[in-house]
Amino acid sequence: MLTAAALAERFGLALRGDGATAIDSVATLAGAGPGQLSFLSNPRYRSQLAESAAGIVVVREDDAEGLDRTLLVARDPYVAFAKIAALFDPPPAANPGVHPSAVVDASAEVDPAAEIGPLAFVGARSRIGAGAIVGPGCVIGEDCVVGVGSRLVARVSLVRRVRLGERVLVHPGAVLGADGFGLAMDAGRWIKVPQQGGVVVGDDCEIGANTTIDRGAIEDTVLGEDVRLDNQIQIAHNVRIGAHTAMAGCVAVAGSTTIGRYCLIGGAAGIVGHISICDRVTITAMALVTASIDEPGEYSSGTPLMDNRSWRRSAARFRQLDALARQVQALAKEKT
Amino acid sequence: MLTAAALAERFGLALRGDGATAIDSVATLAGAGPGQLSFLSNPRYRSQLAESAAGIVVVREDDAEGLDRTLLVARDPYVAFAKIAALFDPPPAANPGVHPSAVVDASAEVDPAAEIGPLAFVGARSRIGAGAIVGPGCVIGEDCVVGVGSRLVARVSLVRRVRLGERVLVHPGAVLGADGFGLAMDAGRWIKVPQQGGVVVGDDCEIGANTTIDRGAIEDTVLGEDVRLDNQIQIAHNVRIGAHTAMAGCVAVAGSTTIGRYCLIGGAAGIVGHISICDRVTITAMALVTASIDEPGEYSSGTPLMDNRSWRRSAARFRQLDALARQVQALAKEKT
Amino acid sequence: MLTAAALAERFGLALRGDGATAIDSVATLAGAGPGQLSFLSNPRYRSQLAESAAGIVVVREDDAEGLDRTLLVARDPYVAFAKIAALFDPPPAANPGVHPSAVVDASAEVDPAAEIGPLAFVGARSRIGAGAIVGPGCVIGEDCVVGVGSRLVARVSLVRRVRLGERVLVHPGAVLGADGFGLAMDAGRWIKVPQQGGVVVGDDCEIGANTTIDRGAIEDTVLGEDVRLDNQIQIAHNVRIGAHTAMAGCVAVAGSTTIGRYCLIGGAAGIVGHISICDRVTITAMALVTASIDEPGEYSSGTPLMDNRSWRRSAARFRQLDALARQVQALAKEKT
Repeated sequence: MLTAAALAERFGLALRGDGATAIDSVATLAGAGPGQLSFLSNPRYRSQLAESAAGIVVVREDDAEGLDRTLLVARDPYVAFAKIAALFDPPPAANPGVHPSAVVDASAEVDPAAEIGPLAFVGARSRIGAGAIVGPGCVIGEDCVVGVGSRLVARVSLVRRVRLGERVLVHPGAVLGADGFGLAMDAGRWIKVPQQGGVVVGDDCEIGANTTIDRGAIEDTVLGEDVRLDNQIQIAHNVRIGAHTAMAGCVAVAGSTTIGRYCLIGGAAGIVGHISICDRVTITAMALVTASIDEPGEYSSGTPLMDNRSWRRSAARFRQLDALARQVQALAKEKT
Repeated sequence: MLTAAALAERFGLALRGDGATAIDSVATLAGAGPGQLSFLSNPRYRSQLAESAAGIVVVREDDAEGLDRTLLVARDPYVAFAKIAALFDPPPAANPGVHPSAVVDASAEVDPAAEIGPLAFVGARSRIGAGAIVGPGCVIGEDCVVGVGSRLVARVSLVRRVRLGERVLVHPGAVLGADGFGLAMDAGRWIKVPQQGGVVVGDDCEIGANTTIDRGAIEDTVLGEDVRLDNQIQIAHNVRIGAHTAMAGCVAVAGSTTIGRYCLIGGAAGIVGHISICDRVTITAMALVTASIDEPGEYSSGTPLMDNRSWRRSAARFRQLDALARQVQALAKEKT
Repeated sequence: MLTAAALAERFGLALRGDGATAIDSVATLAGAGPGQLSFLSNPRYRSQLAESAAGIVVVREDDAEGLDRTLLVARDPYVAFAKIAALFDPPPAANPGVHPSAVVDASAEVDPAAEIGPLAFVGARSRIGAGAIVGPGCVIGEDCVVGVGSRLVARVSLVRRVRLGERVLVHPGAVLGADGFGLAMDAGRWIKVPQQGGVVVGDDCEIGANTTIDRGAIEDTVLGEDVRLDNQIQIAHNVRIGAHTAMAGCVAVAGSTTIGRYCLIGGAAGIVGHISICDRVTITAMALVTASIDEPGEYSSGTPLMDNRSWRRSAARFRQLDALARQVQALAKEKT
């Protein structure tokens, strides 16, 4: 049990109400009981605040007005909540050693303080750092590095020449370091362009389930520090992603594109190859970026959702849009 | 060999022609021989009916007219075909026991009538029900439940706190229960929001290959009974999907969205977070849903396919669409 | 070390400059040193040619003009580069034998010259050809064939009835031969349509990481020879893809569609089911194909990227596009 007073002190929050109120877990506003802490961040859920049975609620200053209950006031309640919730869900610590069912190549170097889980494989010349966890069913190929304190949850593949920094978290099914998609057409048949680069992932990155990051054709594919990728994202060879950029699920980035720092890429957005996106660009869900972006800001493409019948009419008109515009120009001309 | 008469009786179908006609397998209209059964459901293939060498054909009443061959008449030929075909392709039964190459945590409970396949892993406190099959290379983490008669085909991951109902079928590469994508920006760096919920999957659900379903942040991510997800679908944390809803491949659903019962979501459609979609909504392929939907019906977004040159012209005009509309308004005003 | 003269002779290239110039690896124009070979293919990088320290550069005839350095002149520098680079990165040869940690069903046939890697599984009646490599963590189910010289890199699933030709390369996480998504609605519940077909993959195909190819409902899903699929592509049941067609990452193709030869499908494009696309069709990134295509050429859909504020205005007008067009027609009519 942790008291409101202890939490206020530990995380530098302002306390309102009874500092002795104690909680032993976290919950949503709607689901919380008296022994739980909750928070209000998204205004969508404000109406739940009055009825919530939560023992402690973390709120913004202006949401705290007139509430007669135990509150912790934070500039950013979501951040404060994240830190408090982490007290009840600490990341697993490595259980040092190699599971008897794992297979480790003789030339691999596994730190004595690293954990190699059941049915995992570590290939030639790969190095696993202290405190790192290679979970069940992971396959690490040749010449890879798993940095200190990094964790491959389960069934992750590092194929070849993948270097993870420290405290990197990779979720199941992710594949880092597969061949980039390099092809050349020669006399009516494709020939494969060798992919001789690697993948470099900075400290504190997180890579989602079933996300794929190909290794570079010649030079490396590179993620800066603290890059956060959700599930099922595709990062092609030689892409470079700046520090602190986050991408929602199912984004696809084509080869040799450079993305800046602190970008936010919405779900299922696409970014073509060989372009450059500056820092602090936001791309909305399912937008397609086809040219470089030099100005920070929010960008979109697509059309709004409509009932299918109305949409069919608008879609048919889209086909004729150029003719329509010319007709309007002609009408305007006649006018003058 | 099964006769037309026997099939008619077993599945309540009307028989036309020779009830003694026997078949031992199923085939397409174009590919079937005299010892095979086929069906006509999609009108696209109607022209193949006359020439088909199939011994028995399952058809609708109105397709049966004037045909001098052995027919089974069904209200829904596809349903009847599915049931007949299943006779020749029964789902595998569990071969009880734990394969010697599998690794099962001492605290896990595996029903004696369950099958744990080669090179599979079952983690702490997880429970595998009677008749369940955990196929080769599956990884089940902590605190998971695989219900009676469920089957993880191969290389499936249940990461943490995933509870599958009965007769759930999960295809290879699917990842259920990975961390939801919860992040908060704190002083220029992302901090991770702990994901303390689980995933609950109802009875008779089917989860496609390489589909990902994240576990909830606080409460659970929930699929009702008989939900059918195709391959490479992304379901974010705290999504709720109603019973009997089906999604085609590559759909992405963002966090905390609720989807009703009997919805049909087309391939590669996107659904943003924190919205609600009522029962019996159809979304067409690659549409993006950005707001709640309260009326059943069919919804779409996007533009029609065009040859690239024409498309470039329409696309350029789309950029100027607001100016064009204002110009038309001005012209109309002058007129009056 | 290989000299320019030797490379010119081996690959039929024209030599300019010092034939004794020797290199031991390849690099980008910007990154190359005197002991390295580079190339210029994409005009985007032409400005780097003058400053490049590369010992040898492969160029087109017209890029060679006026350059006082060692050059190899090729009709297609990218093709020539690919062939030269392959000298320094030969594909791995099979290390024959079955790893002690692998599990092979008694009824499977593994050629003595094939390699079955650590923690791999080969199921009933499957056959692995000479020189084939089944990498670590792969799972091969029943009745599959891996042709001579094919390679499953790691953690690949061939589920059932998957026949790979010769020299097929499959990257980690790919799932071939899972059940097609066949469902019929019967009295308010889905029933599963058995998937009795297989997957046939022609010689020299390449299948990307986490790509999924379902097996056919009745007949097979078929890839012709030399088909190249990037990562996270979804190929539904009974799709047929012609020889030499290439698809970029995240493409989704729905069931029973036929795609011709030498097609190029851009990233994250969608193709609906039951249609036919002729040879030599190019689809641009994120386009949706909703009807058959009978003419070779380039096709697109979607709208261009805009700053979010401008886009909102255009998107709002798209909703009213039919009304706008009618208004213009009315204005034009009044005019006459």
